[in-house]
Amino acid sequence: MSALPGVKALVFDVFGTVVDWRSGIARDARTFLARHGKADVDPHAFADAWRKRYQPAMEEVRSGRRPFTRLDVLHRENLDGVLRDHGIDAAGIAAEELDWLNRAWHRLDPWPDTIPGLIRLKARHFLAPLSNGNILLLANMAKRAGIPWDAVLGAEAAQAYKPQPEAYLRTAEILGLKPEQVALVAAHNGDLAAARKTGLKTAFVLRPTEHGPHQATDTRAEQDWEVVANSFEDLADRLGC
Amino acid sequence: MSALPGVKALVFDVFGTVVDWRSGIARDARTFLARHGKADVDPHAFADAWRKRYQPAMEEVRSGRRPFTRLDVLHRENLDGVLRDHGIDAAGIAAEELDWLNRAWHRLDPWPDTIPGLIRLKARHFLAPLSNGNILLLANMAKRAGIPWDAVLGAEAAQAYKPQPEAYLRTAEILGLKPEQVALVAAHNGDLAAARKTGLKTAFVLRPTEHGPHQATDTRAEQDWEVVANSFEDLADRLGC
Repeated sequence: MSALPGVKALVFDVFGTVVDWRSGIARDARTFLARHGKADVDPHAFADAWRKRYQPAMEEVRSGRRPFTRLDVLHRENLDGVLRDHGIDAAGIAAEELDWLNRAWHRLDPWPDTIPGLIRLKARHFLAPLSNGNILLLANMAKRAGIPWDAVLGAEAAQAYKPQPEAYLRTAEILGLKPEQVALVAAHNGDLAAARKTGLKTAFVLRPTEHGPHQATDTRAEQDWEVVANSFEDLADRLGC
Repeated sequence: MSALPGVKALVFDVFGTVVDWRSGIARDARTFLARHGKADVDPHAFADAWRKRYQPAMEEVRSGRRPFTRLDVLHRENLDGVLRDHGIDAAGIAAEELDWLNRAWHRLDPWPDTIPGLIRLKARHFLAPLSNGNILLLANMAKRAGIPWDAVLGAEAAQAYKPQPEAYLRTAEILGLKPEQVALVAAHNGDLAAARKTGLKTAFVLRPTEHGPHQATDTRAEQDWEVVANSFEDLADRLGC
C-alpha cells in the first residue's frame, strides 16, 4: 500500500536533496584556490558564499526585472562576485579555468543513498528532476553520477524558478499529469509548501548536513507532508518499492 | 580516429531513425480496429495515413498560423481525421481508448541495432534526441524501451519544429555547444540537409524499411554526409566506439 496513492511521477529537488552541493563545490574550489595562492581560504566557506548569491540572482528573474536566464549563467556571474570578495580578480584568470570551476555544479556527487533509492523508485514511478538547474547542468550531473532519470527536465522547460507556481504546474503539464498525480521530493520545507499550494503531493527527505555539521534549517518536517523519510532508501520503503 | 572530430554530442532523429514507427502504430491500430468492427482495414495503411497528416499539422505551427503545439496534441487531432476517413466516428469512442491509441507513439520499438549501438556510442558521446516529439512522448518511449539518452530534449525546449533552423540551433545552445560540436544522426536526407545548413555535422543511417517493403525515399545518402552507416552498430564502429 503506497503512501502516495494516485501519484504517477516523482519529481525531485536536486541541490541538497539529490546531491551534496557543499562538499562538491568545496572539493573543486580547494583545487582552484590553491592554484591561485589562496590555500588559506576555507573551501566550504567559499562554497557557502557562492551559494548565498543563488537566491538573489534568481529573484531578478522571478520579479521580471530580468528575462529568464539559465542557472549556468547566473552561477558564472555569481562566481565573479565571490572571487572578488576573496581578493581574486576574475579578469586575470583564463576563461577555461573559470568555466571549469563554474561546471563544478555539474560534477556534484549524490548522497550515498540517492542512487540505490532511485533505482528502486524507478521500477514503479516516472522520475524527473524539478530543479532550478538548467538541462545541461542536470544532464551532465546525471551522466557522471549515474542518476537514472526518466526525463531530464530543466528550468528551461518551465521558464520559471521555484518557488514560482509555474515551475510546479508546467512540470506537471509537460508530464501530461494533473498536479495531484505528481509528488515533489525535497529536503526543503519551503519548496514543499510552494508545491503543495499548486496541488502537488509532497515528500520530505531529511538532509541534516546539507549546510554542514551545524545546520539550523530544515532539520525536521514543518508540515504534515504526505511522506517524511530519512533517506531515499527509506522513501522507497515507505512507497512500497 | 573518429570520423567526427570535435563532435561532443550526437543528437538523433527518432521516428524512423531510432524507432520503427510504422510497425508499432500498426500493432496497436490492429487491436483498436478489431475492437471497433474494422478488422478489414490494413493496419499498416492506417499507420501510413496517420503519419501522412504529420507534416501538414506541423506546418501550421512552422508557418506561425498556430502557436507552438506539442506533438501529442497534433497526433490526437490527426487521429480524429484518420478515423473519420475510415468510417469511424471518434465522438462515439471513450476518451481513454482514443488516448491509449494516441499513446501508441509513446510505445514504439527501437530497430534491433538501436540499443546495442547507443550503449556503445554513449561511452564517448553525450546522446540526446533531436525530434519533433514532445518530452513526455520521448521519455515514455525511452523508459519502456530502455533507450539510454543522457538528456531527453523535446520540441518544447526549442519551441520549433524541424526543419526550422531554430530546432537545430537551440538544441546546440541548450547543450552548451557550438553547432559544429553537435552531429545529427538521421535516416532522412532532408533533415540532415537542414542540420548542415545551420552548421551541425551529419551522419546518415540507412533505414530501408521505415516505410515498408517498397520504400522509395531515403534509400541512399544523397549528399556527402560526414558519416554514412548501415545501422547504429555500424555507426559505433565508424566512430571508433
